Amino acid sequence: MSKHSYPNGSPAKLVRPLVCKLHAYVPGEQPKVKGLIKLNTNENPYPPSPKVLSAMRAAIDGRMRLYPNPSAQLLREQLADLHKCSPDQIIIGNGSDELLALGVRAFVEPAANGDSASSEPSKSRVQYFGPSYSLYPVLAETHGATPYSVPLLEDFGLPSVSQLRRDKRWDFQAALTFITTPNAPSGRGYSTRELEVLCSAMKGVVVLDEAYVDFADENALELCLKYPHVIISRTFSKAYSLCFQRIGYWIGHPELISALHRIRDSYNVNGLAQIAASATLKNLSYYQRNFRRVTESRSRVAQALTGLGWTVLPSQTNFILARPAGPPAHQWLEDLRRKKILVRWFASPNLKSFLRITIGSESEMDTLLKTIRGLSVSKTTR
Amino acid sequence: MSKHSYPNGSPAKLVRPLVCKLHAYVPGEQPKVKGLIKLNTNENPYPPSPKVLSAMRAAIDGRMRLYPNPSAQLLREQLADLHKCSPDQIIIGNGSDELLALGVRAFVEPAANGDSASSEPSKSRVQYFGPSYSLYPVLAETHGATPYSVPLLEDFGLPSVSQLRRDKRWDFQAALTFITTPNAPSGRGYSTRELEVLCSAMKGVVVLDEAYVDFADENALELCLKYPHVIISRTFSKAYSLCFQRIGYWIGHPELISALHRIRDSYNVNGLAQIAASATLKNLSYYQRNFRRVTESRSRVAQALTGLGWTVLPSQTNFILARPAGPPAHQWLEDLRRKKILVRWFASPNLKSFLRITIGSESEMDTLLKTIRGLSVSKTTR
Repeated sequence: MSKHSYPNGSPAKLVRPLVCKLHAYVPGEQPKVKGLIKLNTNENPYPPSPKVLSAMRAAIDGRMRLYPNPSAQLLREQLADLHKCSPDQIIIGNGSDELLALGVRAFVEPAANGDSASSEPSKSRVQYFGPSYSLYPVLAETHGATPYSVPLLEDFGLPSVSQLRRDKRWDFQAALTFITTPNAPSGRGYSTRELEVLCSAMKGVVVLDEAYVDFADENALELCLKYPHVIISRTFSKAYSLCFQRIGYWIGHPELISALHRIRDSYNVNGLAQIAASATLKNLSYYQRNFRRVTESRSRVAQALTGLGWTVLPSQTNFILARPAGPPAHQWLEDLRRKKILVRWFASPNLKSFLRITIGSESEMDTLLKTIRGLSVSKTTR
Repeated sequence: MSKHSYPNGSPAKLVRPLVCKLHAYVPGEQPKVKGLIKLNTNENPYPPSPKVLSAMRAAIDGRMRLYPNPSAQLLREQLADLHKCSPDQIIIGNGSDELLALGVRAFVEPAANGDSASSEPSKSRVQYFGPSYSLYPVLAETHGATPYSVPLLEDFGLPSVSQLRRDKRWDFQAALTFITTPNAPSGRGYSTRELEVLCSAMKGVVVLDEAYVDFADENALELCLKYPHVIISRTFSKAYSLCFQRIGYWIGHPELISALHRIRDSYNVNGLAQIAASATLKNLSYYQRNFRRVTESRSRVAQALTGLGWTVLPSQTNFILARPAGPPAHQWLEDLRRKKILVRWFASPNLKSFLRITIGSESEMDTLLKTIRGLSVSKTTR
């Protein structure tokens, strides 16, 4: 029900043809249904530390009228201390999504207009494994670059370098390669050793997207401090319960990081977001306790679902990918939604038999398991 | 003092040549000097309404762990009510800077690589008047588009359409034209009538950047509801004392706005920023009182400086552009800085004889005037 009525017709021809044909990324639903158990977007079930909330409240004063620090300097210094690197190796983003988009724009050439026989196609290539974060191809297409998906192994493991060399689809020269590690949506973790072998074979920029790494047994941070073409992407959203505040960061060689600084918005990070993240870094033990609670629930739920005949993939994240017993996954999606439990289902061929279930609080997981048991019985008896 | 030492040399060749040669926008200084009077970045001297601060504090709770509304729906609905349009004519940005960058990417083609004789140069053109916001050329260059500056009249007035037709530098077909209205850094206001004549002669997208319009006698909002190629850009930063929270918005034809939505980050606006802006719209009378205080101080300061022999340009903004009496402007910049008053000076030929002075609080303006009087006496006597 639009109220507008412009006399002079449509301005659609003023939009770039590239943009007209884009399909936007579709984020997971955020319905406002009372009593809904939301296990569809991998948010942390626990709130931020009370100390973080206090630090934020205390900062809400006249300073709101002032510009925030344009480079989030204090936060970069704290992160540099934490990760034993230098602040010029760090850039903070308005969520790590902003940094993923900046990376594409800094390191990848748009494909020549209409000229499909470009002399150096690798320079326009944004490469990633499938399935992984469905934002990557959207970012590539938005930039006019070429998205390039190469399948993971059937168990969502990484192909070895020699497998990739035989598989002509993989491009070791690709301008930018995203590796989601641990992988989403499968939850599968990769060892630093195998990531290192792959990274060292790559010639372009490699971003190890560690959005979920705090729930894993190991991380690959050392690689971005050792290889000048490797960047680590982290976020405060999931592990640190700050989705609402939009803070991610990248660590890498100062020359790559400086390129990203050059093309970002001058004041890209909200001032309170900087304060929230700074306070978080002073209270890490609170979060480490939560990580343990999440991983314990993860084991418990996996075991219980396995007992019900479900196939649950090993997970190093705060979600599990599980193939339900009985009816197909999308049927379970609907049945659970009717019981006010929201999980995620992907229609693609290699994922459509699975549900992705975020690990919620202990009581949410109790309700989930109870609901699944109830549905299993009714499905069996009808 | 970088701690990094990568064994494998520099990754500089992995950065796009375009990005390597960019000059980043340099924001005004944000020094943390105690007792400094900061009149250099056009921030509002008054804090947000106490009701806005309360609304923000009340929202700091467990919801931080959740993603914010991805399209800032409530805020868009409130703004649609305020501006008598439809929510699909509005997009919220992480500051209006983000929207300016999105506009360049949605409406302007990057110039063909190395092919300077492109068949349609207007499609790659980002056009604006000089002087205006120095971010515009940075955004054009970052995108690989062609920045295209055409001078304002000597008194910073808009050239008429017939003057522009004679002046071959102006391109009526330019893909994107930014008009800062009221102008920064001069403070000069433009009538809606003259803006309408100019807009209706243009064939590409025209963004009327009204960052400072709340301090002006009129605004041109009606034009973006009448002309499908005209967009209005507004911000909560300056007039609504929310620089720290990064919220701007654009209003325009749904097809242009939809193109911007398609290429923005999925969760580009911080959740608390949405709450702060929503609360602001419920307390507009508080801000209207502040606008009057600012414009009254503006008149008083202009009169006092004129009395000291300064030339003060008429202003419709929360700052004034003034040519000092006596020593050159950059000397005044240094002298005032020594007295802990920070103002802005631009080195370009048409601005270097001026200082840009933000209108601060009444007492800050008293101190400014007293300091200038003191420096004037010492300059006269030495």
